[in-house]
Amino acid sequence: MDQVLISEVGPRDGLQSVQAIMSLPHKCAWISALHASGLREIEVGSFVPAHLLPQLADTAEVVRHALGLSGLTVMALTPNRRGAQAAFEAGVHKITLPVSASEAHSLANVRKTCAQMVQEVREVVRLRDEQAPQVKVEAGVSTAFGCTLQGAVDETHVLNLAQALAEAGVDDIGLSDTTGMADPAAVRRLFKGLQQAVGEKAGAAHLHNTRGLGLANALAAYDVGVRTFDSSQAGLGGCPYAPGASGNVVTEDLVFMFEAMGVHTGVDLVRLMQAREALRAGLPHEPLYGMTPEAGLPAHFQPTPGPARACLTP
Amino acid sequence: MDQVLISEVGPRDGLQSVQAIMSLPHKCAWISALHASGLREIEVGSFVPAHLLPQLADTAEVVRHALGLSGLTVMALTPNRRGAQAAFEAGVHKITLPVSASEAHSLANVRKTCAQMVQEVREVVRLRDEQAPQVKVEAGVSTAFGCTLQGAVDETHVLNLAQALAEAGVDDIGLSDTTGMADPAAVRRLFKGLQQAVGEKAGAAHLHNTRGLGLANALAAYDVGVRTFDSSQAGLGGCPYAPGASGNVVTEDLVFMFEAMGVHTGVDLVRLMQAREALRAGLPHEPLYGMTPEAGLPAHFQPTPGPARACLTP
Repeated sequence: MDQVLISEVGPRDGLQSVQAIMSLPHKCAWISALHASGLREIEVGSFVPAHLLPQLADTAEVVRHALGLSGLTVMALTPNRRGAQAAFEAGVHKITLPVSASEAHSLANVRKTCAQMVQEVREVVRLRDEQAPQVKVEAGVSTAFGCTLQGAVDETHVLNLAQALAEAGVDDIGLSDTTGMADPAAVRRLFKGLQQAVGEKAGAAHLHNTRGLGLANALAAYDVGVRTFDSSQAGLGGCPYAPGASGNVVTEDLVFMFEAMGVHTGVDLVRLMQAREALRAGLPHEPLYGMTPEAGLPAHFQPTPGPARACLTP
Repeated sequence: MDQVLISEVGPRDGLQSVQAIMSLPHKCAWISALHASGLREIEVGSFVPAHLLPQLADTAEVVRHALGLSGLTVMALTPNRRGAQAAFEAGVHKITLPVSASEAHSLANVRKTCAQMVQEVREVVRLRDEQAPQVKVEAGVSTAFGCTLQGAVDETHVLNLAQALAEAGVDDIGLSDTTGMADPAAVRRLFKGLQQAVGEKAGAAHLHNTRGLGLANALAAYDVGVRTFDSSQAGLGGCPYAPGASGNVVTEDLVFMFEAMGVHTGVDLVRLMQAREALRAGLPHEPLYGMTPEAGLPAHFQPTPGPARACLTP
C-alpha cells in the first residue's frame, strides 16, 4: 500500500515565524488536537536561547506534554550541541539539525560556515551515541534549492554536503526549500541525487509554498520515492514581508492531495481541520491559510483506507 | 525542446464569474496586455444571450479588437449552434463547446442531456464545415473529475463521451476540472485514457485551484503528455461562495512553474505581471490572486530560453 508520513512542523517552524507568543496551555492543546487527527510525527519546538526565539522558550515543557501522546514521535530542532543536550534531557525521540547549503545563509542562521556546521553535527552525533543512543538525528539541508541571500545554490555542493552529513553519522538527511525557490524538475533531480549520494539515509522533503508550487513540488518528490513530508497546519510560518504568500506547505492541502490520490496518510481530514480551532484559539490574530479548509471536502470524498497510524519511522 | 501552450481564459471564464461588468475599453486593454506578455491563445468571451451573461454581451466587439493582435489565436465559448454562428460571423479562430460529463450539471448549465449536447456538437461541426471551415472546434468535457451536483463522475463515461465527441468531428477534446475535485492520480489516469480514446485529438487540461491542487494537477497532466493548459490571470473566476478559494489555475503561477522547470511557455513573466494592472483598472474591486505576483520572482530567476511565441496550435 502506498503511504506517506506527514511530519507536522507548525509548532516549531510556524510559531517561530510569528510575532505573537502562543501560551503553553494553548500549544499543548493544539499539539493534542494535531495528534488526535492521526499525525504521528510533530516538531514541537526548538532548543535555542530564549532571547533569540522567545516564542519557543517553553519547548522543554511542550516536549513533556507531547511525550504523553501515544505513538507520537516527538521532534525538536537543535542548532548545536548545547541544544541537543537540552533536547536529550527533555526526552525527545528525534532531533533535527539545520545545515545550510548556502554559506551566506549558514552564517546568518547559525553563525557558522557549512564546514563548521558539519563538524558540529559530527559532535552532536557523538553526544547522542554517548548519552541518548535511542534518539534519532536528522539533518535538514536548508536553502537546498536556492537562497535569497546567496542566489543560486550549486546542486553538486548540496549533494556533497549531504554525503558529508551521512558520514558524520546522522540517521537521515532531508532537503529544505527554505525560501520557496524549488520547482518540480529541481525537486526530482535533487532527491534522486540525494538517494544516490546517501542511499537509505535520504529523508524528508521540507517544502514551502511561497510561489504556490508547494504541492506540485511534493508530488514531484513523491514521484521519485520520497515518503516523508514536512508541512505546517494553516501554512503557518513563512515570510511576513510577502502577505498572502504562506510559508510552509499547508498540512490540510497536502493531506487532501495524498488521500485523494489514494496515498494513505493516517490523518483524518475532518479532525485535522478541527485542529485549526485550537490553533486559532492560541493565535487569534494570525491569518490561517489553506485552500481545502476554505473550500471544504468534496461531498463524495472518501479517505484512502489504511492503518490508523502513519508512523513510518521507528 | 519542451514547450507548452498556455491558453488564457480569464476574459471569458474569469469575467463571467464576477458580478461587475468590465467595460469594453478595459477588456481590450487587458487582452492587449496579455498578448504583449507573449500569450498566444486567449478565450476572449462567450456567444451567449446577453440576459444570461451581461458581463460578456460585447464579445463580438472584443473579438474584433483581438483579431488585430498579431499571432493570437482568438477563441470564444459557444454553447450551441446559435452561438457558433455568431462566433463564425465575428471571425474567431477557434470555438470551444462545453459538454458536461455529469447529466445534472449538463441540464443545469445548457439545459440539455449529455446525448443531446453531443448531437448539438455534431451540428455545430456541420455548420463549421459549411460556413467557416478554417475555424477550429474544441469540446471541453466539464465536470470530468467530479461534480458538486451529481457527486462522483464515472471515468468510463467521460472517456466514452470524449470518443463520441471525436466521432462528432471536433478537432480536439479537453478535460475540465470544473469544480476543483481532480487529484494528480485521477489527472494522469484520465488524460492517459483520453489519449487512448481519441489519439491526436486529446487536448487541453482546464484545471481549477479550489483545493490548492491546481499546479500539482497541471504537473501530473504534463507528465503524461498534455501540452495545452487553460488558466486565468490572477485566478479570476471560481466560486464566490469559497472566499480565498481562487477558481482557475493562476496563469502567473503556472507560467512560473513551467519556466522554472525548464519548459518554455513563450510568456514573459514580468510583462504578465504588469498585465495585472490592466485587469485591476477594469475591475478595481475584485480580489486578484496569485502567489508568484505576491512573492515576486527569485532574484536569480532565468526564464527558459526558446522562441518568442508559444503558438503550438495552427
